Formats: sequence, C-alpha cells, structure tokens
Amino acid sequence: MTNAGGHRVTRVEVASGAGAYPVLIGRGLLQGVPSLLSEFAPAFRYVVVSDAHVANLYGEGLVERCRDARLHADLFTFPRGESSKTRKHWSILTDQLLDAGVGRDAVVVAVGGGVTGDLAGFVASTFLRGIPVVQVPTSLVAMIDASVGGKTGVDVRAGKNLVGSFHPPKVVIADPDTTTTLETGERAQGLVEAIKHGAILDEAYFEGLRTEAAPLLAGDPDATRATVLRSVEIKAGVVAQDEHEGGLRQILNFGHTLGHAVEAASGYELGHGSAVAAGMVLEAELGESLGITATGTGERLAEAVALLGVGGPVRVPGGAERVLSYLGTDKKSRRGRPRFVLLNRVGSVQDNGGWSREVPASEVVRLVTDRVEDAGN
Amino acid sequence: MTNAGGHRVTRVEVASGAGAYPVLIGRGLLQGVPSLLSEFAPAFRYVVVSDAHVANLYGEGLVERCRDARLHADLFTFPRGESSKTRKHWSILTDQLLDAGVGRDAVVVAVGGGVTGDLAGFVASTFLRGIPVVQVPTSLVAMIDASVGGKTGVDVRAGKNLVGSFHPPKVVIADPDTTTTLETGERAQGLVEAIKHGAILDEAYFEGLRTEAAPLLAGDPDATRATVLRSVEIKAGVVAQDEHEGGLRQILNFGHTLGHAVEAASGYELGHGSAVAAGMVLEAELGESLGITATGTGERLAEAVALLGVGGPVRVPGGAERVLSYLGTDKKSRRGRPRFVLLNRVGSVQDNGGWSREVPASEVVRLVTDRVEDAGN
Repeated sequence: MTNAGGHRVTRVEVASGAGAYPVLIGRGLLQGVPSLLSEFAPAFRYVVVSDAHVANLYGEGLVERCRDARLHADLFTFPRGESSKTRKHWSILTDQLLDAGVGRDAVVVAVGGGVTGDLAGFVASTFLRGIPVVQVPTSLVAMIDASVGGKTGVDVRAGKNLVGSFHPPKVVIADPDTTTTLETGERAQGLVEAIKHGAILDEAYFEGLRTEAAPLLAGDPDATRATVLRSVEIKAGVVAQDEHEGGLRQILNFGHTLGHAVEAASGYELGHGSAVAAGMVLEAELGESLGITATGTGERLAEAVALLGVGGPVRVPGGAERVLSYLGTDKKSRRGRPRFVLLNRVGSVQDNGGWSREVPASEVVRLVTDRVEDAGN
Repeated sequence: MTNAGGHRVTRVEVASGAGAYPVLIGRGLLQGVPSLLSEFAPAFRYVVVSDAHVANLYGEGLVERCRDARLHADLFTFPRGESSKTRKHWSILTDQLLDAGVGRDAVVVAVGGGVTGDLAGFVASTFLRGIPVVQVPTSLVAMIDASVGGKTGVDVRAGKNLVGSFHPPKVVIADPDTTTTLETGERAQGLVEAIKHGAILDEAYFEGLRTEAAPLLAGDPDATRATVLRSVEIKAGVVAQDEHEGGLRQILNFGHTLGHAVEAASGYELGHGSAVAAGMVLEAELGESLGITATGTGERLAEAVALLGVGGPVRVPGGAERVLSYLGTDKKSRRGRPRFVLLNRVGSVQDNGGWSREVPASEVVRLVTDRVEDAGN
C-alpha cells in the first residue's frame, strides 16, 4: 500500500499474547495518523503524550490534525530527557489524565523517542488498570527497537527500567522522515541497536550497516526506512516466539547487561546507545576470553560502533568498581547473579540450553577492571 | 483432599488469559503454605508482604515455616490501613525489594487483607516488568472477593483503585480460620461482598446469608468456610467469562459506582464494605425509580446489610455534593459519564445489550441529594 504522499507503506505483524499488532513503516506516515488511529485503535478520546521538544515538532501538529478529523484529542507533555523516565513523571501524567476526566474509553498515543514510549506506555498500562497505547516513534532508537515488543517502564535509583510492564501497543506507526530532525549523534544512538540486531542474528545486515553508516548518519530517508524495516522484522521475529523474555527474547539483551551497568554508572549521562555499544564490545570480549566467541568479534564490533562515532574507551565516574556494583541489581539476574548473552560469532548467539548464562565472576571483574576507566566526577 | 489438620480442602479453578489458577479453601491451610508454594509457585526466593499487624499475626510465622522447609523467604511490611494503598508505599516496597537484591526468579506472597493483596499484587505486577504473586487472604473481604480475579492497584487523590493492573495470582490460599482474629465489624465488611454476590446472581445464597448472619458475624469457621467457597465459585464463574471487565465482569461492580464515590467522599474513613452496602441500596433504589428494578429490592438489600450492622443512613462530610463530584472520575465511566449495574431483582442483573449503563444524570442527582447526608467535618 502507499500513503497520501505516494510513499510505500510496509506492514510487519508482531505476534503477541494480547493479540497481534501491526508495525506500519512509511515515509510521510505521520500525516495519516488520524485515519490510522480510527482504523487500528478506535476510541472516544486520544491522549497524545510527548516531551516538550517533540510536542513542538510533531505533537501539536498531530493533535491539530486529529481535531481536524473530528477526533477528541489532547496533548500532555513532560520535560525532555531520560531524567523524566521516573515514577514521579508517571504519577504526574497519570494525575493530569485523571484531572482531565480521561476514562477507560481513551487511547494513549506516545509520540516521541524511547523515553516517551516507555513512560507513556507505562502510564497507559496502569491507568484504570490499563488502557490501550499506540506507539508513534519519532527517534531512530524508538523505531528500530523500543516501540516494538511491548516493554514499558521507568528508571529507579537502583537501575534502569526496573519498574514497568509488558503492554503491547495496538499499532506502531513509524515515519522515517521524522528522523530528519534528529542530530547525527541521536541517529548514531539508534543505529547501535540495529548493529545489535545484526550481531545476534544477521551478519549480512551487520555488514550492510557498516557500508551504509555514512548515509544513515546523515539521515538519508530511504536508507533509514530500509534499516528500520529490517530491524523491526528481526525484532518481531524474536518477540513472536517469546514475548515475555522467558527464553529466546533474551538474545535482544546482548550488550545490555554490561551496557545498563555502564549507563547507570554514568548517572545516565552516557546515551543508551553509547552504553550498549560499549556493552556489546565488552560482552564480545568476555565471550572471547571464555573461548565461546570467535576471536576478533570484539574488534569487529568495536570497528562497527566506531564508524557510528560511539566507540572508544569506556570512561565513567567511579570506573570499574561502580560498574560492577550496578551489575548486581540487573533485572536479568537469577539467583542474584547477572546473566550474559554471548555470541558464537557475528550473526549467531550461543545456545547452551538457554539464551543467557552466568559467567565466572572473576572473569567479569577482570574484564571490567581492565577495560573501564574512571572519568572522575 | 484433606490437609494435615484433617480438614477438607476445596479447589476452585479460575480461568485466566495468563493461565488458569486454583483457589484452595480449607481450614488450617495456612500451616501448609510452604509445600503449597513449592507445588504451585516454585521460585528461588519468596517475598512475603504483610501489613505490620498481619505480619505479627501470620506473616512472621509463615516466613519461619518457609525457612524450616528450606525455602528462601523474607518478610516485608508496610503500615496497616487503606491509607497505605498508595503509589508511595508501592514505591517504598519496590525499592526495598531491589535493595534486597530480589530478582525475576522471586515470587511475591501477599499475606493479609484486600489492601495487602492489591498493593503487593501491584508491586509484583510492575517489579522488573512483572514477577508472579501468590495471594494468601486473611480477611473475609479478601477471601470472598479481592484475592480472586487478578485485580491489583492503589488509590490516588482522584479516587480508589485508579492506578493498577490485572495480574492474576499463581494460586490463592484461603484459610477461613484466619478470620477468627478479625473484629466482628471487619467480618461484616467482608460479608457485604457476599451479599453482593447473592444480589447479582444467586437469590438462595442471598437469603442464606441473612439466615446465617449471626454465626457468620461471630466467626463460626464452618459457616465462614461455606460462604467463602460459594462466593469464590460465583466470582470465578464470572471472571472466567470476562477477565478484563469488558463485559459480564461489570456485574461485580453492582453497588460500587456509588459505593466508591461514597467511600472517596468520606476520605476513606468509611470501610469499603460499608460504602458498598450503601452503594447497593442506593443503586437498587435508582433502579426502582427508573422502573427497572423490582419494587422493594432496595428495602431487601437495606435489611440484609442492616443485619450485618453496616446499614443505615449515608452520612459523609460534604454530603451529596461531594459524592456527586467523585462520580465523575469513576473508572467505570465512558464518554465521561458514570455507568451503573442495575438489578432486575435480587439474584438477577439487567442485561440491556451490556451489563452496565448510563442513567439520566438528573435521577442520580435527585437520589443522591435525597439520600446522602452531610456528616460535617
């Protein structure tokens, strides 16, 4: 199918226990949101949630178009940034919806990046015990990763995403043209998750991302569209088999065990993509030192993320010690011990009767001590 | 089957989208919790949550027995009372679990009344995006109603239970002997929900509760056991057909639209049962004045709740005006208007193509103005 702008719209179905939902990917799709809402998420009322920055860029216009289409729509905003992904802002948004008389016959429309999708999704998931959510990702990381799969949540003192829920959207509407308003650095953050998709399941895709790094970083719309599509296909394939991360879905956590620890240790100053980039390289090296991952894999990953400008030495305040302290509270832990997804090689994850595993603590300590530098405060 | 004390244990299955779960009802069952946990909710670690009062009565002993059975179990407590059913205490409990290193391989065991089940259930539902919960109700209202059906949540400024989730338990373990430590007034609060079950679906049960009111209020264990069983059967039958309250489950809200408004208007000073008792009488009268409910139904309900000592005039600070203001934010509202479940007669709910309906606002205003008195402050 094509949209009003004559661009191709591709539909990827994501299986879910709560019913399958489509991810629609197409340039210019943002213009058609009102009719897509009516088709995929009919409601008495729409609650559009954006951060203040995206509200200005896309949220206000989207609400206008909804009203032009005679939909009851209102905009709710919160301050931009990961520091808003908290129980406090979840409470504030929830109370604002209640004060506005929003009822169970409403749908939340999350317009923005990963923070918005997670925060607004968690609001929807717990509002009157759950109302539907539609994800309209406008950042590359949200399109490539966060908006698909139903994870919602907030960060707490002990770590990132430790409070939340699974709340699959009714539909995901991804318009790659919205990524043109991103900074190059923001695009790079998103492309790290694409690199991850290649690293775990598709070597050709991994290599293609290296070749296409320049146009992707520059925001070329067709290259972006193709990348979003392939990443969504990969993620949808995984999530369809294991929605709640009891099994296969764990492979999507490659790079994230150490990545989250690095991100938390940085006080969330480090972008999620940069932290995962560091985490992937570290976890590849960990696999190599254990004789599981093919020699040189860490280096290939390091080169790939360097092409995106997010590689280089890992430096956080407090250094290795602080990173190790955050590993203990990782939500992927079992029996109090962190678990790791290890690669066989680029494009293939080790399956040792499960998709994640403990590794000897001494190896983790050695690696982290060796590779993580103290950035001071 | 029988338990170690030689008492009969009855099992009622509750169908759920997340998998069926059993409600086990038997005198003395609390002694067998460790083996029941191992059987129905195997885990690396058990997080027992009670209010400070129930912790003392049952929580500490239960943790001891778990440890004797070589289960890893810890007790987490919060201050007694509905005023603890808040996002604040949900946050505090969540952080305590995180600080204690609780992981995804843990199960929350909610030991206590309705507040504990709702609060601990919501903690479990959002902890690391959801870990299992086992409900061990020790109050009559929790056994008869709150522990079955998967609803969890907290109260917020705008009203009761407005934030929460559906999170069905792995198993419900109901030991009627725990109700012997309740005050008569607490038993009465619970029996109101049993009256409701009779009022909507089973006239013979309704009449039986009137006949048995005295032994039930006195805490007769066998009468209590029989009542818990029948109420659980009724509730399980409804929830099996409609877990998420899109249809039939709405009938369980009989008495609750005005009941919640009365409860909120009282600043939660009025017990939930007393508020629902008032709500049932008011909603029966509403149905009568609309020509839907058989004449005299309100009076029958008023007599039944009077036998429990929770009847009489409705008095709240601010009176009718304050009750009406809370109706607007009821979570059962659609298009901003509150909805009501109306009886045909005792034992039968009106089905007018749906199980709840709007009624003319003027009728509600008239009835509430007529029946609700201002208690001052």
